[in-house]
Amino acid sequence: MTAEGAPRVQRDGDVVTLTMCRPAKRNALSRDHLTQLLAAVTEVGESDAAGLVIAAEGPVFSAGHDFADVAGRPVTEVRSLLQLCTELVQTLHDVPQVVLARVHALATAAGCQLVASCDLAVAAESAGFAAPGGKGGWFCHTPMVAIARDVGRKRAMELALTGDVIDAATALDWGLVNRVVPDAELDAAVADLMARATRGSRASKAWGKQTMHAQLGRPERDAYTTAVEVMAAASQLPGAVEGMSAFLEKRRPVWSD
Amino acid sequence: MTAEGAPRVQRDGDVVTLTMCRPAKRNALSRDHLTQLLAAVTEVGESDAAGLVIAAEGPVFSAGHDFADVAGRPVTEVRSLLQLCTELVQTLHDVPQVVLARVHALATAAGCQLVASCDLAVAAESAGFAAPGGKGGWFCHTPMVAIARDVGRKRAMELALTGDVIDAATALDWGLVNRVVPDAELDAAVADLMARATRGSRASKAWGKQTMHAQLGRPERDAYTTAVEVMAAASQLPGAVEGMSAFLEKRRPVWSD
Amino acid sequence: MTAEGAPRVQRDGDVVTLTMCRPAKRNALSRDHLTQLLAAVTEVGESDAAGLVIAAEGPVFSAGHDFADVAGRPVTEVRSLLQLCTELVQTLHDVPQVVLARVHALATAAGCQLVASCDLAVAAESAGFAAPGGKGGWFCHTPMVAIARDVGRKRAMELALTGDVIDAATALDWGLVNRVVPDAELDAAVADLMARATRGSRASKAWGKQTMHAQLGRPERDAYTTAVEVMAAASQLPGAVEGMSAFLEKRRPVWSD
Repeated sequence: MTAEGAPRVQRDGDVVTLTMCRPAKRNALSRDHLTQLLAAVTEVGESDAAGLVIAAEGPVFSAGHDFADVAGRPVTEVRSLLQLCTELVQTLHDVPQVVLARVHALATAAGCQLVASCDLAVAAESAGFAAPGGKGGWFCHTPMVAIARDVGRKRAMELALTGDVIDAATALDWGLVNRVVPDAELDAAVADLMARATRGSRASKAWGKQTMHAQLGRPERDAYTTAVEVMAAASQLPGAVEGMSAFLEKRRPVWSD
Repeated sequence: MTAEGAPRVQRDGDVVTLTMCRPAKRNALSRDHLTQLLAAVTEVGESDAAGLVIAAEGPVFSAGHDFADVAGRPVTEVRSLLQLCTELVQTLHDVPQVVLARVHALATAAGCQLVASCDLAVAAESAGFAAPGGKGGWFCHTPMVAIARDVGRKRAMELALTGDVIDAATALDWGLVNRVVPDAELDAAVADLMARATRGSRASKAWGKQTMHAQLGRPERDAYTTAVEVMAAASQLPGAVEGMSAFLEKRRPVWSD
Repeated sequence: MTAEGAPRVQRDGDVVTLTMCRPAKRNALSRDHLTQLLAAVTEVGESDAAGLVIAAEGPVFSAGHDFADVAGRPVTEVRSLLQLCTELVQTLHDVPQVVLARVHALATAAGCQLVASCDLAVAAESAGFAAPGGKGGWFCHTPMVAIARDVGRKRAMELALTGDVIDAATALDWGLVNRVVPDAELDAAVADLMARATRGSRASKAWGKQTMHAQLGRPERDAYTTAVEVMAAASQLPGAVEGMSAFLEKRRPVWSD
């Protein structure tokens, strides 16, 4: 049995889909919901799944934080809420799975941060993206950490300061999502990109995405110091050994890790 | 009374427009002009204005440093000139106002740096952008600090090494400006974007843009450390309290800060 | 006489072209080939050439590392191979010449890293780019250090995780290359961009590109600290003195450095 409003977890082959299903609450990231999402993502992270899709149902993908958790609360409580949200998005970087956002509708504030924090994102044409704190009273400071790292500086500032919604095509142009497709083709596009992104050795890819997130945003020479060590060590893993042997022997590889 | 050639300062409602008006000198950023601009920007920063437009008149937006300040001068003098210019562009980040460049014509070298250093930028179709030091004898080192943070690495290198002018459409595609409009619509587009960018609580937005500039370019985890603290503290500000109360009470917010 | 398979070095005026000519091996970056390339690039770096074109012949630009150097080798050997490759790409940043990749065909893994590490890149329409380790067993950790710094985060993740090839037009859109032209116009486009990028004082430009690579990826204030010092010192170089004098005297500059 599922706790009321807990995200739905479905496994289909090697891919787990986590669906936020509190449409009446616009899938707001309340403390309760964040805790459930973090638990679910952590559990998938410990499984042998190859991919994790973050999805949602209802008219909104996610509206971000629930103001009921924040209004009138002391700074220590708000800090711990934001730390919980930060822990969730960093866990998306840390789990070994390829994490892909399936964005069918509007994603705002921490909901947009969730999309920006997934490794990959596929959006339906009906999707939209915004950091509305900029036109309200509580600026989207933490969402912009993730969003600004996908789009350029001037574009990040525009999103942050205006609070306006950009459509899916603009999000693709700015690099916030990887694909935009007609709404009816969203599941097929998610499945296709996930299949492409989960081919090969999973252990290799898991270390790959974790190292990517670790080296991005660092000066290039520092990034090389890390990447050289990891790539040298990774050459000793079963997947690397099999991949290179298969290539040199002109046969198809068989992945065991 | 205005000092000769000092930038014109005009306030219209909540928005101050600072206009460089040395067209015969192509609005070169001489030591004198930089000092005037810094004083004017600092004064606006201490006012209750919500927005600051950086504009210019004449055939050129700004041609950058005035070689008369540099040619034949010792390194200590040139350093202090560059430090003054750096102080100006960092002050654009530090003032509480939304800072928007209104680019009607060619912006080169430190003139292009000025555009890159504004939070937002709107360009007329007649505008152009270049870092011409690359084809001369004095490379645009400091301008490229700002410009490279708006556009990608290969594009920054192309601007820096060729010194060629890119047109407004290319600047939009590369993320150096937020809007490009026909020349006749420039003022309307500036007013529209500024109005969108100055909605909501100003205190919230001021802290927002300052924190954005502080966290950009840092590794993501470091950026979160800063952003979580600021956003938690910001939740206690009058604007955040009012914004969330209004939302929860389904009424329009009234901003007092 | 040239060592078997050593890159061909041709000087035409001020520009040296280094051509990988091991088409049967798809210009794989074997330890031997990396050593030859590093020696050749270092030698060009010590010459008075203004530009360096990295080119290749055969059906593939470069397929990256040679698995024969890696399969079954201990981690210390693999580390030293990756360090050698890192030294090559950092030397491309460090040499005083403008370095331009001429990409006529598929560039994968460390071959794509080579393109990403050149200051500029021109691609033929037939070119393609991929980080195929993502769909194999050995993730492209070090190639992605360079590639991710040219394209955005979501796009870097897509390249890294799917291993799929992007075409030249997509590489241009994402900022991995500066120009895409029909195959027959590749040499003309390379010559044109190189001519534009090597105008002016070479000493100034050499320091310029080196400082660009050093300041990119650092927080903006740190970058300014470096750039102000370098630009102040650079104002004392013969090229800067001549460039500014010529401008002030309204005559054409004559570059001596």
